[in-house]
Amino acid sequence: MRNLEIRTTKQAEFVVITSKVQRIIEELGIKEGICVVSIPHTTAGITINENADPDVVRDLLYKLDQLVPNHDPNYRHFEGNSAAHLKASLMGNSVSVPVHNGKLALGTWQGIYFCEFDGPRTRKIYIQAISSSI
Amino acid sequence: MRNLEIRTTKQAEFVVITSKVQRIIEELGIKEGICVVSIPHTTAGITINENADPDVVRDLLYKLDQLVPNHDPNYRHFEGNSAAHLKASLMGNSVSVPVHNGKLALGTWQGIYFCEFDGPRTRKIYIQAISSSI
Amino acid sequence: MRNLEIRTTKQAEFVVITSKVQRIIEELGIKEGICVVSIPHTTAGITINENADPDVVRDLLYKLDQLVPNHDPNYRHFEGNSAAHLKASLMGNSVSVPVHNGKLALGTWQGIYFCEFDGPRTRKIYIQAISSSI
Repeated sequence: MRNLEIRTTKQAEFVVITSKVQRIIEELGIKEGICVVSIPHTTAGITINENADPDVVRDLLYKLDQLVPNHDPNYRHFEGNSAAHLKASLMGNSVSVPVHNGKLALGTWQGIYFCEFDGPRTRKIYIQAISSSI
Repeated sequence: MRNLEIRTTKQAEFVVITSKVQRIIEELGIKEGICVVSIPHTTAGITINENADPDVVRDLLYKLDQLVPNHDPNYRHFEGNSAAHLKASLMGNSVSVPVHNGKLALGTWQGIYFCEFDGPRTRKIYIQAISSSI
Repeated sequence: MRNLEIRTTKQAEFVVITSKVQRIIEELGIKEGICVVSIPHTTAGITINENADPDVVRDLLYKLDQLVPNHDPNYRHFEGNSAAHLKASLMGNSVSVPVHNGKLALGTWQGIYFCEFDGPRTRKIYIQAISSSI
């Protein structure tokens, strides 16, 4: 398993990590297989979405905030970041990407995003890739 | 890695692909392992849900639309399909299914669905399966 | 593939299963690899979130209920549990966790949760783990 560390700079932001993950696949020499990208955090997520127009990510953050506002008088968690915990589970804790011909099998416009919902913080990312014999 | 191609026929619909994925598992001869089904698209998702009463999928689409309406004056993405991008991340870009005794380990009522949120379009699906030695 | 069986006791609850999954990893002798935890159900999910303050899970359930209420006159599914089906897809049908040095690579506060949305019921959980040669 390999690790990445990133420093987020906002309370909420999506940070694209595709090229860092691709580099690890190359270092590991995986040609055909599966790559799992996961995080050891509960107020952040991992997702795959468009990495062309930055307004896509802006709109995702806007609508997620509207659905799950940071403040709600009925939240009980003492740290006050329940919204970040729910957004984390909505995006998910990991993505699984096929590796084909030594490359992450992603579409032209896709990027792998670390989703910060309770930053800024220093965050870790785990990358585990497994080769297929087929 | 294997590919599937499907043609969606509506703006939003769930297309069941379970039997096509199962056929690939059989062609690959995987008896025990993990199968990742992913898509190279950012306005569609993959999920597992009930494949018995079609009203389940109808209700999923209805409530997703209510939560994330296609039109919102505050969206900024110029293509006008921000809702599809968010629904894609909410459903997820892939599913990971155990393979056991040569079969996808799914429940009786479960189906693997391609979730179209910005169709109709021709769409690709990637299937990567890995054998376990255990 | 290994199975777990749990008995949920409420209509909606999150049941932590981390230590049960860890025990299976040890029984299988997996030192480095990927573990997929999935369920053969469509009104329940699997997620990873905080396992420290129980109010986090309470707040997740509260907000999920507010977003996707159990009752909506526009639902058509005859069983009346459409909300549980949508919550299942929002949380996801599986989690994929790296295994490193014989341990699930989770953060200090993370737990793997079975998410019951239509209980109480007896539920099954599938665990499939694959070793990496790297």
